[in-house]
Amino acid sequence: MTTVGLLHPGEMGAAVGGCLVSAGHTVLWDPSGRSRATTGRALAAELSGTGFDSLVSESEVIFSICPPHAALDVARQVAETGYSGLYVDANAISVATAQRVAAVITAGGADYVDGGIIGPPPDAAGHTRLYLSGPRAKEVAALPRRSALEARIADGPAFAASAVKMAYAAWTKGTSALLLACRTLARAEGVERVLLAEWGLSQRALPEKSQQAASAAASKGWRWVAEMEEIAASMTAAGLPAGFHEAAAEIYDRVSRNGTPPSDSAWNFDAVIAHICSTPT
Amino acid sequence: MTTVGLLHPGEMGAAVGGCLVSAGHTVLWDPSGRSRATTGRALAAELSGTGFDSLVSESEVIFSICPPHAALDVARQVAETGYSGLYVDANAISVATAQRVAAVITAGGADYVDGGIIGPPPDAAGHTRLYLSGPRAKEVAALPRRSALEARIADGPAFAASAVKMAYAAWTKGTSALLLACRTLARAEGVERVLLAEWGLSQRALPEKSQQAASAAASKGWRWVAEMEEIAASMTAAGLPAGFHEAAAEIYDRVSRNGTPPSDSAWNFDAVIAHICSTPT
Repeated sequence: MTTVGLLHPGEMGAAVGGCLVSAGHTVLWDPSGRSRATTGRALAAELSGTGFDSLVSESEVIFSICPPHAALDVARQVAETGYSGLYVDANAISVATAQRVAAVITAGGADYVDGGIIGPPPDAAGHTRLYLSGPRAKEVAALPRRSALEARIADGPAFAASAVKMAYAAWTKGTSALLLACRTLARAEGVERVLLAEWGLSQRALPEKSQQAASAAASKGWRWVAEMEEIAASMTAAGLPAGFHEAAAEIYDRVSRNGTPPSDSAWNFDAVIAHICSTPT
Repeated sequence: MTTVGLLHPGEMGAAVGGCLVSAGHTVLWDPSGRSRATTGRALAAELSGTGFDSLVSESEVIFSICPPHAALDVARQVAETGYSGLYVDANAISVATAQRVAAVITAGGADYVDGGIIGPPPDAAGHTRLYLSGPRAKEVAALPRRSALEARIADGPAFAASAVKMAYAAWTKGTSALLLACRTLARAEGVERVLLAEWGLSQRALPEKSQQAASAAASKGWRWVAEMEEIAASMTAAGLPAGFHEAAAEIYDRVSRNGTPPSDSAWNFDAVIAHICSTPT
């Protein structure tokens, strides 16, 4: 049984923490300054609250699961303490950013394992995979045994886990943003009904898929902005065009900049489209 | 029965021409300087070859069905003759470009009908729709009766047909390019196998879909470059980010700049990916 520190449990982190608890580990988190919703999720997942310093000093393994724009800051805070255990960055960040996190972590005296989570917050087996890569990946892969979270070694280079997460999310979240842009274009041009009728004939999944994309963007778009920027940077680093994900970042930024709309779904959808369309329609 | 001029039948144009012939119309085309493949398709569709000048003087309706980058030139050539019939631009062009085509055509003395074709080259009913808009759209919609081509009036503004084509293709051809970029990213990063295994679990259509996207890009990408640029311009005009389709244009340009690979599908795929990836992998 291992003592694991979790920085900082959101929806995904709390579920991953719950899997580690169900596998028999003690999972520490730091409740200071966190929201009531976060605290509720951490309690439900049976995570153990403690201060940041004792979390770091007591943990053999620390998981960083946070919005991608915070990944480097979290690593710096841990490295400053002189932490010498195992540090797993499981965030949606580019290989270049993961390399910077690794450099910060190893300079501080700890070992780095690269991670990437694909799938929804794990609550039933078979849907969520934690990809891991790097020299000590196998030690981390042993932790969530017999839980809803499946650990997999990502064969390939040291930062394969981050790389596969980028390439995967490039499609899923890239297409969601693109779909919102297509439907917003049709609305702006006065042909949304015609497009919906054509989709009904030849792209039957898209009317509902665009509704779901709007709903997801409204609730989670705020943390996808940086993820899209990390993917855009990954594309550039590989000599590929960054435009898809720069545009996706812009779409999610427009939605989230205007706050999360209330939960009524009809209102939601129109509000999201209105937020995306910066010109009067 | 109407005499229809067709400028210039490629794969789509020949099939549309065939539908008009099967509806009882005489369809003229101009074989001068066209390839053997084009001539073969025109003969198969029972189009009637004639010179450009007699095509224009004899046609009551002219359809422009050509690569989008040629749409304005074709319109200018027709307008210069003093053509005074009905001119249907059925190309994948933005509303702004369609407005320029319409201005050229009406200045020349003809009437303009806006069109947009959605679906494959029509050979069986139910798969391909010709959207039409503008004051005289109904006259054109009556032409392909009882053929494999379904004509539909696109309700909305005068250039609704072009607008709906842009919003539709923004998704279909945008996602194909994005998918190729995702898979190329994974290959460049050394994690293509890991990505394919994950797709096999959670995105089962994507391995085959990416193969199809590569094949389509290899054979048709050369005429999608301008189409993606037209969509990017449409996005900009609507206050939306142009990056998705600027990137898609770049992907199709990289594939087509290197020529169409031979038909062996395995070689095809790797060649297409290699063309997309400008950096050594």
